[in-house]
Amino acid sequence: MYLREILKKFKNGEIGVHEAEKLLKLNAVKEIEELAVIDVSREKRVNKPEVIFAKPKKWRHLKKIILETIKVKKHLIVSGLGRDKAEEIMKEIHKPYLSSFFEEAEILVIKHGDFKVEKRGKVGVLAAGTADIKAAEEARVVAEEMGCETIKKYDVGLSSFFRLLSALKEMVKEGVHVIVAAAGMEGALPSVVASLVDVPVIGLPTSVGYGFRGKGEAALSTMLQSCSLGVAVVNIDNGVNAGVIAALIARK
Amino acid sequence: MYLREILKKFKNGEIGVHEAEKLLKLNAVKEIEELAVIDVSREKRVNKPEVIFAKPKKWRHLKKIILETIKVKKHLIVSGLGRDKAEEIMKEIHKPYLSSFFEEAEILVIKHGDFKVEKRGKVGVLAAGTADIKAAEEARVVAEEMGCETIKKYDVGLSSFFRLLSALKEMVKEGVHVIVAAAGMEGALPSVVASLVDVPVIGLPTSVGYGFRGKGEAALSTMLQSCSLGVAVVNIDNGVNAGVIAALIARK
Amino acid sequence: MYLREILKKFKNGEIGVHEAEKLLKLNAVKEIEELAVIDVSREKRVNKPEVIFAKPKKWRHLKKIILETIKVKKHLIVSGLGRDKAEEIMKEIHKPYLSSFFEEAEILVIKHGDFKVEKRGKVGVLAAGTADIKAAEEARVVAEEMGCETIKKYDVGLSSFFRLLSALKEMVKEGVHVIVAAAGMEGALPSVVASLVDVPVIGLPTSVGYGFRGKGEAALSTMLQSCSLGVAVVNIDNGVNAGVIAALIARK
Amino acid sequence: MYLREILKKFKNGEIGVHEAEKLLKLNAVKEIEELAVIDVSREKRVNKPEVIFAKPKKWRHLKKIILETIKVKKHLIVSGLGRDKAEEIMKEIHKPYLSSFFEEAEILVIKHGDFKVEKRGKVGVLAAGTADIKAAEEARVVAEEMGCETIKKYDVGLSSFFRLLSALKEMVKEGVHVIVAAAGMEGALPSVVASLVDVPVIGLPTSVGYGFRGKGEAALSTMLQSCSLGVAVVNIDNGVNAGVIAALIARK
Amino acid sequence: MYLREILKKFKNGEIGVHEAEKLLKLNAVKEIEELAVIDVSREKRVNKPEVIFAKPKKWRHLKKIILETIKVKKHLIVSGLGRDKAEEIMKEIHKPYLSSFFEEAEILVIKHGDFKVEKRGKVGVLAAGTADIKAAEEARVVAEEMGCETIKKYDVGLSSFFRLLSALKEMVKEGVHVIVAAAGMEGALPSVVASLVDVPVIGLPTSVGYGFRGKGEAALSTMLQSCSLGVAVVNIDNGVNAGVIAALIARK
Amino acid sequence: MYLREILKKFKNGEIGVHEAEKLLKLNAVKEIEELAVIDVSREKRVNKPEVIFAKPKKWRHLKKIILETIKVKKHLIVSGLGRDKAEEIMKEIHKPYLSSFFEEAEILVIKHGDFKVEKRGKVGVLAAGTADIKAAEEARVVAEEMGCETIKKYDVGLSSFFRLLSALKEMVKEGVHVIVAAAGMEGALPSVVASLVDVPVIGLPTSVGYGFRGKGEAALSTMLQSCSLGVAVVNIDNGVNAGVIAALIARK
Amino acid sequence: MYLREILKKFKNGEIGVHEAEKLLKLNAVKEIEELAVIDVSREKRVNKPEVIFAKPKKWRHLKKIILETIKVKKHLIVSGLGRDKAEEIMKEIHKPYLSSFFEEAEILVIKHGDFKVEKRGKVGVLAAGTADIKAAEEARVVAEEMGCETIKKYDVGLSSFFRLLSALKEMVKEGVHVIVAAAGMEGALPSVVASLVDVPVIGLPTSVGYGFRGKGEAALSTMLQSCSLGVAVVNIDNGVNAGVIAALIARK
Amino acid sequence: MYLREILKKFKNGEIGVHEAEKLLKLNAVKEIEELAVIDVSREKRVNKPEVIFAKPKKWRHLKKIILETIKVKKHLIVSGLGRDKAEEIMKEIHKPYLSSFFEEAEILVIKHGDFKVEKRGKVGVLAAGTADIKAAEEARVVAEEMGCETIKKYDVGLSSFFRLLSALKEMVKEGVHVIVAAAGMEGALPSVVASLVDVPVIGLPTSVGYGFRGKGEAALSTMLQSCSLGVAVVNIDNGVNAGVIAALIARK
Repeated sequence: MYLREILKKFKNGEIGVHEAEKLLKLNAVKEIEELAVIDVSREKRVNKPEVIFAKPKKWRHLKKIILETIKVKKHLIVSGLGRDKAEEIMKEIHKPYLSSFFEEAEILVIKHGDFKVEKRGKVGVLAAGTADIKAAEEARVVAEEMGCETIKKYDVGLSSFFRLLSALKEMVKEGVHVIVAAAGMEGALPSVVASLVDVPVIGLPTSVGYGFRGKGEAALSTMLQSCSLGVAVVNIDNGVNAGVIAALIARK
Repeated sequence: MYLREILKKFKNGEIGVHEAEKLLKLNAVKEIEELAVIDVSREKRVNKPEVIFAKPKKWRHLKKIILETIKVKKHLIVSGLGRDKAEEIMKEIHKPYLSSFFEEAEILVIKHGDFKVEKRGKVGVLAAGTADIKAAEEARVVAEEMGCETIKKYDVGLSSFFRLLSALKEMVKEGVHVIVAAAGMEGALPSVVASLVDVPVIGLPTSVGYGFRGKGEAALSTMLQSCSLGVAVVNIDNGVNAGVIAALIARK
Repeated sequence: MYLREILKKFKNGEIGVHEAEKLLKLNAVKEIEELAVIDVSREKRVNKPEVIFAKPKKWRHLKKIILETIKVKKHLIVSGLGRDKAEEIMKEIHKPYLSSFFEEAEILVIKHGDFKVEKRGKVGVLAAGTADIKAAEEARVVAEEMGCETIKKYDVGLSSFFRLLSALKEMVKEGVHVIVAAAGMEGALPSVVASLVDVPVIGLPTSVGYGFRGKGEAALSTMLQSCSLGVAVVNIDNGVNAGVIAALIARK
Repeated sequence: MYLREILKKFKNGEIGVHEAEKLLKLNAVKEIEELAVIDVSREKRVNKPEVIFAKPKKWRHLKKIILETIKVKKHLIVSGLGRDKAEEIMKEIHKPYLSSFFEEAEILVIKHGDFKVEKRGKVGVLAAGTADIKAAEEARVVAEEMGCETIKKYDVGLSSFFRLLSALKEMVKEGVHVIVAAAGMEGALPSVVASLVDVPVIGLPTSVGYGFRGKGEAALSTMLQSCSLGVAVVNIDNGVNAGVIAALIARK
Repeated sequence: MYLREILKKFKNGEIGVHEAEKLLKLNAVKEIEELAVIDVSREKRVNKPEVIFAKPKKWRHLKKIILETIKVKKHLIVSGLGRDKAEEIMKEIHKPYLSSFFEEAEILVIKHGDFKVEKRGKVGVLAAGTADIKAAEEARVVAEEMGCETIKKYDVGLSSFFRLLSALKEMVKEGVHVIVAAAGMEGALPSVVASLVDVPVIGLPTSVGYGFRGKGEAALSTMLQSCSLGVAVVNIDNGVNAGVIAALIARK
Repeated sequence: MYLREILKKFKNGEIGVHEAEKLLKLNAVKEIEELAVIDVSREKRVNKPEVIFAKPKKWRHLKKIILETIKVKKHLIVSGLGRDKAEEIMKEIHKPYLSSFFEEAEILVIKHGDFKVEKRGKVGVLAAGTADIKAAEEARVVAEEMGCETIKKYDVGLSSFFRLLSALKEMVKEGVHVIVAAAGMEGALPSVVASLVDVPVIGLPTSVGYGFRGKGEAALSTMLQSCSLGVAVVNIDNGVNAGVIAALIARK
Repeated sequence: MYLREILKKFKNGEIGVHEAEKLLKLNAVKEIEELAVIDVSREKRVNKPEVIFAKPKKWRHLKKIILETIKVKKHLIVSGLGRDKAEEIMKEIHKPYLSSFFEEAEILVIKHGDFKVEKRGKVGVLAAGTADIKAAEEARVVAEEMGCETIKKYDVGLSSFFRLLSALKEMVKEGVHVIVAAAGMEGALPSVVASLVDVPVIGLPTSVGYGFRGKGEAALSTMLQSCSLGVAVVNIDNGVNAGVIAALIARK
Repeated sequence: MYLREILKKFKNGEIGVHEAEKLLKLNAVKEIEELAVIDVSREKRVNKPEVIFAKPKKWRHLKKIILETIKVKKHLIVSGLGRDKAEEIMKEIHKPYLSSFFEEAEILVIKHGDFKVEKRGKVGVLAAGTADIKAAEEARVVAEEMGCETIKKYDVGLSSFFRLLSALKEMVKEGVHVIVAAAGMEGALPSVVASLVDVPVIGLPTSVGYGFRGKGEAALSTMLQSCSLGVAVVNIDNGVNAGVIAALIARK
């Protein structure tokens, strides 16, 4: 290791105090990086997953990035990826790497055979309508990949209030540590949920809805203006981030 | 009557065909106006009330407008008026005119002693929080003044869902013809109400709430994006208009 | 019925008081739902129609949802559906179910042979320009399907003011209970209408218009800021909701 | 005159060709300015008035600017000025200067005794409501000061449509060359006017109206989205500019 | 004529006074419309042109509307029309109707052989950049069709200031009555023009520009906030309206 | 208890099956409420605190609400309250109630002498600048009141990056379960924090900043668009909600 | 030269003083233009490059403009151009003109063989993520074309903070005069950079990011609200302008 | 120095390699900070000034911060400070500290007697109107304080174009390295300037202007959408930042 080498050379008189000082300074950037890692990440820490957002990338770029990333990572999540492209990539994944595609979430997961995620807590995932399922599934798959157990209840928006009540009762009974609530249009689901339960609620606005403040804008403002305490919000359609936060909260 | 006079003069040869034609044309504006009135307003029609919005008017202008209006109207609603100014005006109202001030609604009503409003149906009025009561009361007082019976239930927002459910049950039992639901912040009340009842719901967003899309903007978009069918919306804080629409809907 | 069964079993001593209490509690969600239905909906109540918005759904999902819904519903409205897909679905609808497609409204209606809608009142439907007809027709078809009689007058915007006046006279003569006014661009139609008639006006902004606050935004704000009392508004292009509200208002 | 002097000196041999060239170049900025003036302004041209917007200026600055401007201008319009400050300035205006204050318009006009404005055409000025009068008067006073004859009709908004029709008939009969239409809230007045007359209409949105797109924003978008051809728009509350444009249009 | 017929029949005793009154009232809508026309439009009045905006209309609808309109109008402007569709329509236009297509403006004009437009004044048309030419040409063609003489100067934006100055000098020399200035991006052209000339300037913002407040929004606000007096604005890309207003201003 | 009473009366034959059914239905609302409570809240559950937002309330209303609330609650948080009013209320709080005022947070806490909050985990609270301290303190006080231990580090924005790094190291060493990061202006703090730590980060945008997207709007969008996974956001200035969420996350 | 000719003719008596004056005035526009050029541009001045933005132009127009421009310019930058079209144009470029295409930047450069750019200073170019590279490269190529030496470091966003620190150290060591920092999503990169270095930073927001204030809007507001002094901003995706400014700053 | 001490102790055997390593790591944060300083700041580097924005701070806080800052800084700029408060602070500044107040800029500067700023280049400062002077002066004072020579020309907006041209000629003649152009309302000044000169232009939008996109929003978008290359922009009213950037650009 570099730091120790400098110290040794200095001790041995190979380099003087000025030289040692200079070398230490010049490498401080690298040092601080390692230091941060050492300090911050204890043995049992949960790494945030390595996520690549496929949509804005060109096909040849994307493919190359994925294949190079798995050389240094044992666990990779590729989001925003259609089945066709996912299958093309999966053909290039060989043992000891394994890949699986989650169609509703449009997520491809690639894992090294000996990768083992640390077990985390329970995450409830709700979707107000059918059109909100993609975002909800994105959150759910990411939370599962980070070691959580998940319970999902979809199509439980305001227009089917009693189904929602029943879903919440089951989630509370199961002891979820956090609930992700995906909703577009008026986006009132997270507020209603937070008025009924005592776990943190992650509001996930989706780009469902047209006309005035459509595309998730109304949903976002509803969630931020919620009168119910206990709702925090992520960006419109950002199911991946909702899943990460939920998993971070659902520590064992 | 003018039209008949022209016809008579023409018949009698006092005026020629050109003159008659010209006179008829020149008075057509007045005619069409009267005609419209005749056609549109039957015997038992409900007039929309005469409403003066006091806030943007200068004091001396306001006073003059009010005093002149009651010379030609038997029923006048002045909205957006504080107690002090209301009392000053009330001093100038003499028999056979009567005045009454509604403090929560900040509305002054002036009526001729022989004014009789035609009875209309039942209007339910809800307010999500304490801060929404002013707008709700505005709607309630206006609906009452237009001949409606009203039932009010305040402080029934999402955070007290079961109180809302109970309020709605009572309103349905009473047979309200329409419900006005005032709400600021996230503004989800009208959606929830419309998901539970079968009468038309008038969403009344209020300028309660701060930060992102505060001042009623979030509430407005929530109501317009509502997944529940049966919600129509008025402008932020426009309780007067909500009251008028509710009364027009609540015909007997 | 479940509630009675529990009571019976309890009476018969099959279950104890604790068990009865627990069962009653566990089923309360279901109970309250039924109760709400019982309380809220009298014998002759008009149900809001079952509406499926086709546009955001994938074709295979949409088809499946429609076919499964008619198993439990005798009357289904599918909005936002082009002729081609509508015809494909209509092929799968067999007796005793009947289907009909409304081209201008892009609405498919599926009804069980013995479905009978309760008769409701009269709804006037106005469209300012040719481009506003789709939204207006959406409202008209939905109102008709909910049992209303409708009178439509299209192409009656501000630029043809006298045609509008004549249309309104006819509607008033016919005794409409409510008027839906669809308008894009400047969206002044509902204000003008409300200044001339005494029935409630539902403003239906349409996404017609380009440039500054185009796509219905200008129309929406015009309607909300209307100086004429008696206009309530729905979301841009939401003809279905306008139709539902109009029908709820137009009770017999 | 400078240009001629250079030419003379050059002719006389006082300066050489290089010097002449240099002098001409160095003064070209001044020259072009004068040239522009010469070319652009014929004998009978109407200068746009000198207008000072008082509101954003500090009192001592404002006073100084006004007093210095009248040293070089024979006609000065100060807008956005309350009565108190206007009177204080008027005390400092002495013969041959004359000052007059227009209270509704909040405009102070200062003129040299021998100032004579060239006569221009006729301008119609409409205000939808009482609260729009200030902006309308601003336009009217400015147009008058620029030599126009003006006809004003206030309180002729949509809610009093027939009064508007009558006002327009009078204006058309009087042969106005342009109509300024001031309106806040929904701002539909200019569209309606343009659908009825054939002269250019200047839409003047005012900051009247609250809630969604209040403060003139709804009025502005209405006017820009107008279906009626022939409406051009100025900034919210910019009555001065509306008056200037109207006067420029109303040439004799 | 109907009015005279009623009068005659009444005079002749064919109908009584009540019948005459009723007939006159029932026809008042039609009458007032004619009356308006009579009063408003003197002999030499300039009609606003009949304009059909092709873009939002379905092909079969558009074709039908055009062919039916020329049955009752001798002069028709179809805007927003590509060459292909224009040619298809032109094939169906037969003598005595003549059609001509303006490619840059994407405007088709159809005229009856004996249609004669009344001569009007001069309109200057400026475009800041190449991308603004379409909107400018739309204005120019419409103004020409309304009887104006037009002078156009394109590519005279801020980055070629001296070319602009020269263009303005020519326009002023030619005695234009009004200048239409089309500009996208920052949209400063109309302000600059109005600071240099004394004729009214119609600001025509175009949807050129990307990023923040692109698509004409920045240009629009620049024009509305112009410090130069004498600029009025139309909606983004609304060259047709700019042309109409310019022609109305440029009366002879 | 009511449910049991009905059952008993039914068993005893005091009421029939119909009566029992009816009584059970009529009380179902109350039942479901209790049921929800029973199911949802286990023995050791953490109640969200009772919070009253003082700002929008009138003084006499506020005072009354506070005094009445402590009759039924043992722990009350009043936010948005200045020192003067807080002291006036504190005078009215008598044993066994105790009150304390947190000046920076502008929060008044009233507790019954025997109130004991359950201990929860550790919450880190960061403020980017001095002006963000109020919102941060609001979060901190609320989290403390909910039983959390808190560590605060203020003035650690981007311009003092190394101070931030050191603060984070301490927080990680202390084992915080969640970090609340308050920031106005550009609002980049939460993103930076989340890029360095593995605990959930609650972004708390504050209304600091002027000009374009000032008042917290820029900060909000920065936090929602964060490239770092693990940031969830609350409304601008909503420190109370940030504190509640943090406490819910920081379970022991 | 024209000016001298007039002077000569005047001296020679070929023209009189009036004629001379008139000629001088009539040509003043041209004069002032030349004068400006003479005064403003010294011998060694750096011309801003001739840039054509290809995207909004039609293919045939674009080709013609390019080919005509190189007749009068020795150096031309065409931005926003795909490889296919670039190659088609390159076929038409013949000696002594040379062309080169920069794929990542989508820029085509055409130069006359004897064109020599004056050497300028050093520009650092940073891109936060892969998707920001296009805008960054646009800036880099333009700066290079203007004579700068550039150092680029891409993929150095907040999530890889230490890589950024190292990149900045290198740039500072190299003595860059200015840094262009391209970033989408939250756009915090320029703020962070400016907090660490002492050279001016040009913030280049990119249209990367979705949902709330996506498409570069969040990035733009972050950069404008930056707490770090020393950041100035260009329009979203306007890499060309960023490159020009950077080159103007990086004078030798 | 700490680093050297560790090395010494390690050399001396006082601490082992593990201990040395640990100590070095634990102090790396501090190290890297110093390192950055060492690397980044050469001998002759210009520090960005220490600026305190007074407006949002409470009086007692502000006073304390200022007095404590001058203990560690020899040069302090306090912006956004009125004369009254400035004078109160100036009373507390004693030798060797000197203070001076810039009234137009509302800036207080406090300097240690032996503070010497390094000389930098020339900065031109323009203000479009009187109301823009405050922001312009803020920039000018800051640039002066950072060692620049400044040339100011105020009241040179579009409406006085030729004055602007003359001002620019002077600035170019003086050899300014950068121009700060402050403008509110339409904000076209920086574009016009950049179309005429070859130095970088810093656009400084000011919150002057009312109505649509008033308060500097129109000016900001104009500057970002500028067709002239070479304009970079700072936040609305942020004269301090404009001054800092200008000074950083104007290196000698």
